[in-house]
Amino acid sequence: MLSDIEIAHSVKPLPIIEVAREAGVDEKYVIPYGFDKAKIDYSLLNEPTDHDAKLVLVTAINPTPAGEGKTTTTIGLADGLRRRGVKSAVALREPSLGPVFGVKGGAAGGGYAQVIPMEDINLHFTGDFHAIGAANNLLAAMLDNHIQQGNALGIDPKRITWKRAVDMNDRQLRHIVDGLGGRAQGVPREDGFDITVASEIMAILCLSTSITDLKNRLGEIVVGYAYDGRPVRASELKAQGAMAALLKDALKPNLVQTLEHTPAFVHGGPFANIAHGCNSIMATRMAMRFGDIAITEAGFGADLGAEKFLDIKCRMTGLSPDAVVIVATARALKYNGGVAKADLNEENLEALRAGLPNLLRHVDNIQSVYGLPCVVAINRFPSDTEAELALIEEECKKLGVNVKLSEVWAKGGEGALELADEVMRLVEQPNEFRFSYEDGTDIADAIEAVATKVYRADGVDFTPAAKRQLAQLRENGFGNLPVCIAKTQYSFTDQDKVLGAPEGFRITVRELKVSAGAHFVVALTGQVLTMPGLPKVPAAENIDVDENGVISGLF
Amino acid sequence: MLSDIEIAHSVKPLPIIEVAREAGVDEKYVIPYGFDKAKIDYSLLNEPTDHDAKLVLVTAINPTPAGEGKTTTTIGLADGLRRRGVKSAVALREPSLGPVFGVKGGAAGGGYAQVIPMEDINLHFTGDFHAIGAANNLLAAMLDNHIQQGNALGIDPKRITWKRAVDMNDRQLRHIVDGLGGRAQGVPREDGFDITVASEIMAILCLSTSITDLKNRLGEIVVGYAYDGRPVRASELKAQGAMAALLKDALKPNLVQTLEHTPAFVHGGPFANIAHGCNSIMATRMAMRFGDIAITEAGFGADLGAEKFLDIKCRMTGLSPDAVVIVATARALKYNGGVAKADLNEENLEALRAGLPNLLRHVDNIQSVYGLPCVVAINRFPSDTEAELALIEEECKKLGVNVKLSEVWAKGGEGALELADEVMRLVEQPNEFRFSYEDGTDIADAIEAVATKVYRADGVDFTPAAKRQLAQLRENGFGNLPVCIAKTQYSFTDQDKVLGAPEGFRITVRELKVSAGAHFVVALTGQVLTMPGLPKVPAAENIDVDENGVISGLF
Repeated sequence: MLSDIEIAHSVKPLPIIEVAREAGVDEKYVIPYGFDKAKIDYSLLNEPTDHDAKLVLVTAINPTPAGEGKTTTTIGLADGLRRRGVKSAVALREPSLGPVFGVKGGAAGGGYAQVIPMEDINLHFTGDFHAIGAANNLLAAMLDNHIQQGNALGIDPKRITWKRAVDMNDRQLRHIVDGLGGRAQGVPREDGFDITVASEIMAILCLSTSITDLKNRLGEIVVGYAYDGRPVRASELKAQGAMAALLKDALKPNLVQTLEHTPAFVHGGPFANIAHGCNSIMATRMAMRFGDIAITEAGFGADLGAEKFLDIKCRMTGLSPDAVVIVATARALKYNGGVAKADLNEENLEALRAGLPNLLRHVDNIQSVYGLPCVVAINRFPSDTEAELALIEEECKKLGVNVKLSEVWAKGGEGALELADEVMRLVEQPNEFRFSYEDGTDIADAIEAVATKVYRADGVDFTPAAKRQLAQLRENGFGNLPVCIAKTQYSFTDQDKVLGAPEGFRITVRELKVSAGAHFVVALTGQVLTMPGLPKVPAAENIDVDENGVISGLF
Repeated sequence: MLSDIEIAHSVKPLPIIEVAREAGVDEKYVIPYGFDKAKIDYSLLNEPTDHDAKLVLVTAINPTPAGEGKTTTTIGLADGLRRRGVKSAVALREPSLGPVFGVKGGAAGGGYAQVIPMEDINLHFTGDFHAIGAANNLLAAMLDNHIQQGNALGIDPKRITWKRAVDMNDRQLRHIVDGLGGRAQGVPREDGFDITVASEIMAILCLSTSITDLKNRLGEIVVGYAYDGRPVRASELKAQGAMAALLKDALKPNLVQTLEHTPAFVHGGPFANIAHGCNSIMATRMAMRFGDIAITEAGFGADLGAEKFLDIKCRMTGLSPDAVVIVATARALKYNGGVAKADLNEENLEALRAGLPNLLRHVDNIQSVYGLPCVVAINRFPSDTEAELALIEEECKKLGVNVKLSEVWAKGGEGALELADEVMRLVEQPNEFRFSYEDGTDIADAIEAVATKVYRADGVDFTPAAKRQLAQLRENGFGNLPVCIAKTQYSFTDQDKVLGAPEGFRITVRELKVSAGAHFVVALTGQVLTMPGLPKVPAAENIDVDENGVISGLF
């Protein structure tokens, strides 16, 4: 069996300019980065058009720790549509550099459903994440420099919320004390680094619809609080212009291609817990410009990723999806039915049947909470048995849920033809898309709405600390922003061991904080690790490059 | 008077592919980054050729704190040669991002002698410095992870010499304690960040002649010492493959153009004190492939920059220059003659005469120590008076030193025609290029040779700490590497207030450390700041970008 990188290397990419040309896009908008990568000038989005593309969201069941193949399905579905003669395009998140050197290897699809050049996409790509890190760290340097140079704004060094960022799994930087060494060396204080994808700037970049919007949002960032309790904004440090200058190219979406030469935008990658977990709005819009059907994805399961795609990204940008694909696997169903991770490769029809309610709740949410048509895509793994696949199909049909087998990992677009047909049918259906709470809802009510409608909790409890923060946020004018709930991706509840479709539980909000530039309030239901560490044997030890620049050890 | 960025924006760049084509380079070697930047595939350097280019080094008198315009002269000279019908090319250092937001503004030449697109070159450019930072920080993360995961190599956390890096002026990160927060969060220890250009990886990248050479050098880096005193290498952490993978594109030299469309390689930029201060060998070689005369520069004055270019870069790579241009200004001569920085714009013939011995000593060094022909280029500033310029010419002529006026800042290549003629004459002269010390010289003797021959010191003293380090370096097998002396750039001595051409002084070496991957030993004669800070009003406050992506506030 070939590895992902071997499969990726077996396909000769089209010149990227050809990929744009085939989509009918003038080459003046194509800014090449090498032969097989480009940025697309966003002025294209301002050109008038009567093009009316359909948008399809790919989301998933609550996943196993290994993930269920949303990216792979997204890519394969677009290739399947292309094989059916539909002009399709993909919009995906960019992989983070840090995890590539940890456990994970690459993150650009898998098998015969990949985007290429996978090694570039997994490494620096077009430099977006480094630009985000630089903008993040410029703000941090200007903040500490302001304090060092006299602190005219009266910033309380004990209440700085802005952290530094690096795109590396580096636990050593989670908790630090900096500014040591004497009076010329800064102000000693507690500080820490997040991985770059956890920076609020990542979320901002992904939600910005223009440079002006980007710059305004950057200026709105709250970096901490003054001695008088007042939130201090990046604009008070006059940082937003230079930060936007650092991000001007990063804002342009990156065009690559699938193994079958479908245009693929890979751009932005915020966390799906403390942020909204979707690729950039620029990339989604661009995919809708390149394709008649654009396929995009959102992080984690539908309770987190789809909820945020719909309630945050669509709300802020005016996007309206036409259909939703919910990816499930026999493995994830068995996991939700109680099978331990180590035993997932063994047939277990009983556990599979026990896990189905998890999937069905996601289906029902998409249909009845959000008013959108959806199809379940079963992403086939080599270990799946025929009996398992038959059972899933049969049980879903009983409940009137459309199910299609997706074999894109093994077969590329050829493995998604039936799924493509169903998607083509669904996007022509009328839909009644609505959010799970209205614009301007109080943040506590918005959290309650998501928790009761989407998670099916009985209600929400706020810890005493969260209650105080709630009051402060309202006082500071942040009380009616959309909410971004950070919760375990393994469960509808806030407990990662409670699988399936639990009932009779409550959600506990432990902390609330504003991402004032991203324009949402983050509600934390537990600890979120915003700086990963490396494992005992980092993947980096096996990564290599030969004299001709060919990389190995990414998988 | 137009600002640098306004002048830069007034010229429409040629498509970068045209710049390569005009130099006779096949477009298959040109890897575009946008329309006006490219990387050149270094496989071009392995193609057989009978092309025999001349190499010219541009260096300078001991500078004023404002700098004397080496980069500007280098660019203008190449444009002047082009106007004389000579195929010329330039090789320069890349500006560091951090200082752009501090006091300095841009660093891509000035006036009508610039490389463009200046804003890109000054910001992320093609991402090289971010790649270097990532490789630097991957090694740091793997190092601390190794200790966290059991420390099989027995690394002493108190003797780690490898620091983290960020391309930002951020004094807050100079001295930190990291690994705080409990046993799962790393090992608490003293640590710190350098600005990326101070990373040993920057020096390594600039001295590497192939990916294999790069990888070997990365593996040789000493990251610290074990409890038994043994130096620990990056290769023991198995980090060199992944680091080289991160650097595979950064190793490729960047092609841009001057305002007059001369090919310009802008690539790499190590410090000129703790490192060797020259652009990459790849870029210099590539400029020699693109031009019949290649012009390159080295940092600071000739005592630091030219010495290291000749004794380190040429020694390690087999380059042999054909002529040297020594840039001087009336301002720098007056400064060396004792005029305070604030008064440099006023005519002062006496001070100018008093400063001339500084220039003449550099001329003599190039001729008699290194056996190379040279010319003095007087870089004209608007404040220079005719009387001052006449005096310089007259005094130099008395001593048989060729002097040419360079007016490239105001006139571009047109302002360097006489300088170009003299350079064309000099490169045809026979020369007797030699190093200031032989290969394999003991490090103490090599320091003595540079100090006595180039600085004209009476001798070198080692502090007791430096003596201990000397013994350790010899014991660990580093006793016969070339030396890289970190010294103030303002003086031939190690005291920055001792200007002119002092005699009767000694050099004190306070610290010695090995850059085992760069293959040199650094001898520090004083404190070197490897992480700058921002000033009271950072330049960042004035940098902006408009809705069309046009940047302002860089100068």
